[in-house]
Amino acid sequence: MKLYSYWRSTTSYRVRIALHLKGLAFETIPVDLVKGEQRADEYLPVNPGKGVPALVLDDGTVLTQSLAILEYLDQAHPDPALLPANPIERAKVQAAAQVIALDVHPVNNLRVGQKLKAMGHDQDEVVAWMNHWMSEGFTAFQAMIRPDTKFCFGDTPGLADLCLVAQLYNAHRWGTDLTPFKRLTKIEQLCLALPAFDAARPENQPDAG
Amino acid sequence: MKLYSYWRSTTSYRVRIALHLKGLAFETIPVDLVKGEQRADEYLPVNPGKGVPALVLDDGTVLTQSLAILEYLDQAHPDPALLPANPIERAKVQAAAQVIALDVHPVNNLRVGQKLKAMGHDQDEVVAWMNHWMSEGFTAFQAMIRPDTKFCFGDTPGLADLCLVAQLYNAHRWGTDLTPFKRLTKIEQLCLALPAFDAARPENQPDAG
Repeated sequence: MKLYSYWRSTTSYRVRIALHLKGLAFETIPVDLVKGEQRADEYLPVNPGKGVPALVLDDGTVLTQSLAILEYLDQAHPDPALLPANPIERAKVQAAAQVIALDVHPVNNLRVGQKLKAMGHDQDEVVAWMNHWMSEGFTAFQAMIRPDTKFCFGDTPGLADLCLVAQLYNAHRWGTDLTPFKRLTKIEQLCLALPAFDAARPENQPDAG
Repeated sequence: MKLYSYWRSTTSYRVRIALHLKGLAFETIPVDLVKGEQRADEYLPVNPGKGVPALVLDDGTVLTQSLAILEYLDQAHPDPALLPANPIERAKVQAAAQVIALDVHPVNNLRVGQKLKAMGHDQDEVVAWMNHWMSEGFTAFQAMIRPDTKFCFGDTPGLADLCLVAQLYNAHRWGTDLTPFKRLTKIEQLCLALPAFDAARPENQPDAG
């Protein structure tokens, strides 16, 4: 498989973690979001959504959108599972993951920051914007995960954990106040001690700057 | 079942369509987002994410996040199916739906509009902001669906169609230029002619203003 990825993209980070957790070999094809390579004519057939990640399967099929890719990987390569089989438990894990994947990340995406700057806001205002949505999202997320488990929903990391760890990378980068989120940073610490998470870290990618 | 819903919430609209398509009876509990009822203390235990929809199952279990709810409904009540069974086909339908559910809707959410106003932008700027993301998203979406089917991916409406129809409600409301999206408005027309979509329309809800 090949993964179109950008080292600092948190959606790419989620998929990298899943690939490593499941022991799947892949080649990284870097797409430099800051240079705008995701908007290049030659990238459009890969992903009309002009973003990363995009996963190219061995038969040439291209899959886009990190949550769709993650669910595909979990169906095609079920061990270890990212999602529980029980429909209600599954929906609860997905809902927590989606607080990060829908309520936080899209509003803080690079293109949204660039749009805010085009509307006259400076870097400090963009950072305050990002931190606002992260604080709101982490508050909801922390209330939605299980209070008594090692990882978000059990003894092994799953979909919610990998969305969390990737988003916390941004939180550290932009100085979000994480004091109220001790359980989340504890889970992050446990995750990052695992080789699969470590291999997927932004700074361990071939295109890291 | 009970559905916490707001008539103009496009995420509530998606779930209403699915419930009607699957012939599931539900009671609507209106949450007035404009009045801020989603942030009330008594709503927090329902959804720590402070949004709608939230679906209360007959045993009292509460599910949140529209995409998680939709996938639950599709597992628990598989007929008619919203998603194909084949993992790759499934991932393609999900990716198209997620262009709307992740790249468009969260950036245009009521709370984002309110935040932009708090940062000094007027209604015209907020509307231009929303139209920008809708045009970008519809362009990607139109390139990702099948070109030769009645609905987005087949002869019957599925996850991508119901996300599309709900988002187009906002597009009409805010005057998005839909000239480049003839295939999408054609699909919308076919969908809205179906009783399930009609019953789910914002203007047919008990809390419609």
